[in-house]
Amino acid sequence: MEINLKDIHTPSDIKGFSTEQLHLLSGELRAALMRKLAAHGGHVGPNLGVVEATVALHYVFDAPSDKIVYDVSHQSYVHKMLTGRIDAFIDPAHYDDVTGYTCPRESEYDLFEVGHTSTSIALATGLAKARDLRGGKENVVAFIGDASLGGGMALEALNYAPELKSNIIIILNDNQMSIAENHGELYSHLSELRRTNGTAADNIFRALGYEYIYVDNGNDLRSLIHAFRAAKGQDRAVLVHINTMKGMGLPCAEAHKEQFHYNGPFDMKTGADTCISTAESYDDMFVQSMLRHMRADKNVVALTAGTPGAFGWSPEMRKAAGEQFIDTGITEQDCVTMAAGLARGGARPVMGVVSTFLQRAYDQLSHDIAINNLPATFVIFHTGIYGLNDMTHLGFFDISMVSNIPGIRYLAPASAEEYLAMIDQTVGSPSTPTVIRTPGGPVRHRDTPVDTDFDRYEIVERGSEVALIAEGPFLAIAEETAALLRARGITPTVINPRILSSVDTVCLDTLKDYRHVITIEDGIIDGGFGQKVAAYLGCSPVRVTCLGLKKEFLDRYSVDEVLAANGLTPAQIAEIA
Amino acid sequence: MEINLKDIHTPSDIKGFSTEQLHLLSGELRAALMRKLAAHGGHVGPNLGVVEATVALHYVFDAPSDKIVYDVSHQSYVHKMLTGRIDAFIDPAHYDDVTGYTCPRESEYDLFEVGHTSTSIALATGLAKARDLRGGKENVVAFIGDASLGGGMALEALNYAPELKSNIIIILNDNQMSIAENHGELYSHLSELRRTNGTAADNIFRALGYEYIYVDNGNDLRSLIHAFRAAKGQDRAVLVHINTMKGMGLPCAEAHKEQFHYNGPFDMKTGADTCISTAESYDDMFVQSMLRHMRADKNVVALTAGTPGAFGWSPEMRKAAGEQFIDTGITEQDCVTMAAGLARGGARPVMGVVSTFLQRAYDQLSHDIAINNLPATFVIFHTGIYGLNDMTHLGFFDISMVSNIPGIRYLAPASAEEYLAMIDQTVGSPSTPTVIRTPGGPVRHRDTPVDTDFDRYEIVERGSEVALIAEGPFLAIAEETAALLRARGITPTVINPRILSSVDTVCLDTLKDYRHVITIEDGIIDGGFGQKVAAYLGCSPVRVTCLGLKKEFLDRYSVDEVLAANGLTPAQIAEIA
Repeated sequence: MEINLKDIHTPSDIKGFSTEQLHLLSGELRAALMRKLAAHGGHVGPNLGVVEATVALHYVFDAPSDKIVYDVSHQSYVHKMLTGRIDAFIDPAHYDDVTGYTCPRESEYDLFEVGHTSTSIALATGLAKARDLRGGKENVVAFIGDASLGGGMALEALNYAPELKSNIIIILNDNQMSIAENHGELYSHLSELRRTNGTAADNIFRALGYEYIYVDNGNDLRSLIHAFRAAKGQDRAVLVHINTMKGMGLPCAEAHKEQFHYNGPFDMKTGADTCISTAESYDDMFVQSMLRHMRADKNVVALTAGTPGAFGWSPEMRKAAGEQFIDTGITEQDCVTMAAGLARGGARPVMGVVSTFLQRAYDQLSHDIAINNLPATFVIFHTGIYGLNDMTHLGFFDISMVSNIPGIRYLAPASAEEYLAMIDQTVGSPSTPTVIRTPGGPVRHRDTPVDTDFDRYEIVERGSEVALIAEGPFLAIAEETAALLRARGITPTVINPRILSSVDTVCLDTLKDYRHVITIEDGIIDGGFGQKVAAYLGCSPVRVTCLGLKKEFLDRYSVDEVLAANGLTPAQIAEIA
Repeated sequence: MEINLKDIHTPSDIKGFSTEQLHLLSGELRAALMRKLAAHGGHVGPNLGVVEATVALHYVFDAPSDKIVYDVSHQSYVHKMLTGRIDAFIDPAHYDDVTGYTCPRESEYDLFEVGHTSTSIALATGLAKARDLRGGKENVVAFIGDASLGGGMALEALNYAPELKSNIIIILNDNQMSIAENHGELYSHLSELRRTNGTAADNIFRALGYEYIYVDNGNDLRSLIHAFRAAKGQDRAVLVHINTMKGMGLPCAEAHKEQFHYNGPFDMKTGADTCISTAESYDDMFVQSMLRHMRADKNVVALTAGTPGAFGWSPEMRKAAGEQFIDTGITEQDCVTMAAGLARGGARPVMGVVSTFLQRAYDQLSHDIAINNLPATFVIFHTGIYGLNDMTHLGFFDISMVSNIPGIRYLAPASAEEYLAMIDQTVGSPSTPTVIRTPGGPVRHRDTPVDTDFDRYEIVERGSEVALIAEGPFLAIAEETAALLRARGITPTVINPRILSSVDTVCLDTLKDYRHVITIEDGIIDGGFGQKVAAYLGCSPVRVTCLGLKKEFLDRYSVDEVLAANGLTPAQIAEIA
């Protein structure tokens, strides 16, 4: 008996399978997945851990009529393999045909574009309520990991869902890991439930009104099918807690769960990365700088909301930071507001955060940090066009988000030296809420001394007639543009603004008799620093052009193409200057 | 034995009190509070319910050395009375000396400006960690209501706090109410804990690692003092669950808990409002319009995150909406993302939300609604300068927040007719995510037919030379300005932009040869629609001035003073035109 993955076009193709066939299928899926992951990279551990659970889901439930919502959806690879997209996992020429997350543009089996954590239960309650209003009967399933469950909106929805008093099924995929280790006492509780085969007292899910089903071996097809069948068709909220092994079947991923949560291409036998970057990085600079500050002052605290590895806090570095390192779990709101408490209590909090995830704590930045004028520092990573390029993880909205909150200083360094000086200033002598935007792209050094009056623009090259005001990594674009213009007999003034949350009126006043001021920013134009400049110069005769990215969601783009499409190449800028 | 409230300057003044004296004190505090509330209005029920708990807190703990953080802090009136601010509660001439929330500008006993829910535990974890780093020994207490506990970030922090493995005390003030009724199964669980005198199985707090202490009569000083003493000084996380009566001591507030959560001046005997507004309101229009749509289509759903009464959803109206009305509790994230699920499931969700609280769901608007291009409608209330004027509740940041998220149409009607037409269009034929900004100030009618191509600017008066583009309630300011200008021989063009998330380039192109374009918006200038206009016209010779509010946090301001300070009076605008 053989299974040919190429024959699986829809879940109905596996409905008649025997348990033995489902076993074989799972083995084939896992083997194919490992081959693609080793060659291509991706979310290794999360997907290898849910092969059996995904097969069982599609065996028991009837998608797309039944609705399955994946939380974060970084674990949806096997789901894609079973729903008409197998080529993207077995044919290297098609590896990039699919995104790394669920994607309604790809398939009717995918209900939402998702990439942030903790949304699945809320989405499922909406689907369930819509079903009830129209009198539908389908099952609604949310598939959520233990780490995602600790996020506030997952807990809000976990609390709300039983109130619907109709069918909603939550599959809690407990692989005992977040991206890094889990944080919070919920995880002691889950551990106690696993230890007692689901029978521990003080069951939090029963307390919230769920029928609770525990599956001790969440990689065993027979147990999973049994549990999912018990949950299916019920007219109430059911939570199925499955105990799975992250990275199952791949020794290096089983052994190194944090590293193999997400990994680039690797050698399947040794687990060694096959594409190793030796370039210096802002991440390392940040962490080394933080460790220096921590040694100098025990009140300096580094925080992260569940993504330490995204900006250099490896397990070794976290160990070096000791009690001065805090990971609150994937809980940006809690983390930002804890920073407010730390600052009020006299500590010096510095939270590292990925641009797209800071969106989840907008109110906490405004209401807890800014209104209270607390000297906490936030360092943003994966910013701008060089950041993450999945539609759900874009890094070019943070300027318009952060720089328009009153009372927050938003600084954008253009070089490693400026970056470190900004960190030194805000961590060493904190005075006001400050956000520092780690530049995207390769590390850039500048050998001019850093002027630390960061609320003022820096004149990089003094010229006349045309001024180029370019922030962060785009300062390099301005300098290239300047070279082109000089070749045409124009010597422009090149300015590094450094601060995005206010304009340097003294500097701008000197540009009022210029012919043209061009702002260039590594973010969307709307709500950005360029529009502040345009508004300030609105009553002067000088022309102002704001360059940056169009306000839109892009997906897996080419940087060069996007630069060109937005008129951001030096040649294009020189043309309009 | 008599208690003179005037003698209470700091909590140390009550430390030597007998229980009898504390009783008398509580009686005096409650009586004074009722007098002020009846004359002045305020958060009636929340404060009357915690008189004894606040007295016991300050009797047992040693503030300001011990740190007490109030969640939302709308229940901090008695705390203020005990910490040097008694005049503001017993002398009508000083009633407005204090804000309605904790305020570090007023007192060292107040640690944070707070007005949004669910932040106290996260703030307390920060204070506790800062204490541990510096080797302090003080107690850290978070005082949080049952409704606030259901908010995601409170649950995140509830989960995280025991991980500190040091002193942190959470007082859960369970008055069995949110602003309206509670939602979510957590409340069945709290009810079960109350019914069993704290002994119910499946104790969620014990499951999370807390020492759990239950106080069945949370208005009994002796029990409270006993419980707080048991919690004090412990080197772990303790949760004290106190069962209190919202509105205690005031019959109308005990009987009508939702109405008296917050109330204007009222007659203490009858509970009748003494200042009754009979003016027509956008709230009523919104709810009546929604009920019409609901009757026409059972898939239309109204949602709120815990604040139905803030925009017309009275208990009667909610009853009329029946199954088509959803209150998720004070959980903006869950609510917005549930709307995404509803829209994907074929329903037509319309969420009403107060401007300042939408900040708590920025990522959900972006990641769940906008990226997925789901046709959900969000109607924002208490917007702009005429909105709520507490520093923590300001309504003039939503333009910069919402209008810069890709894919969201942000509409700002300037009249009742336009408002209703926008609701009809987006609810009746939903196509794209839309946010509608309910105008602040008195309802305004306009008798010109509504042009429903809302992505285009409306020319209200056609003139030349000067254009005034004024959104929402500020259109009236523009019209007054136009009258002043006409008297000076200038006939300006007056434009109602209606859409804030994009510019009408066709219309703006007709203004390029004007002398001056002035944008006028009811929000901060930074990130607003005016800066989009300035940027678009940056290369034209026309002068552009962006008017609106300065990017700053104001507190309890006078509208007229703020308008004048920002150059927004018709006379000021005519002057610069």
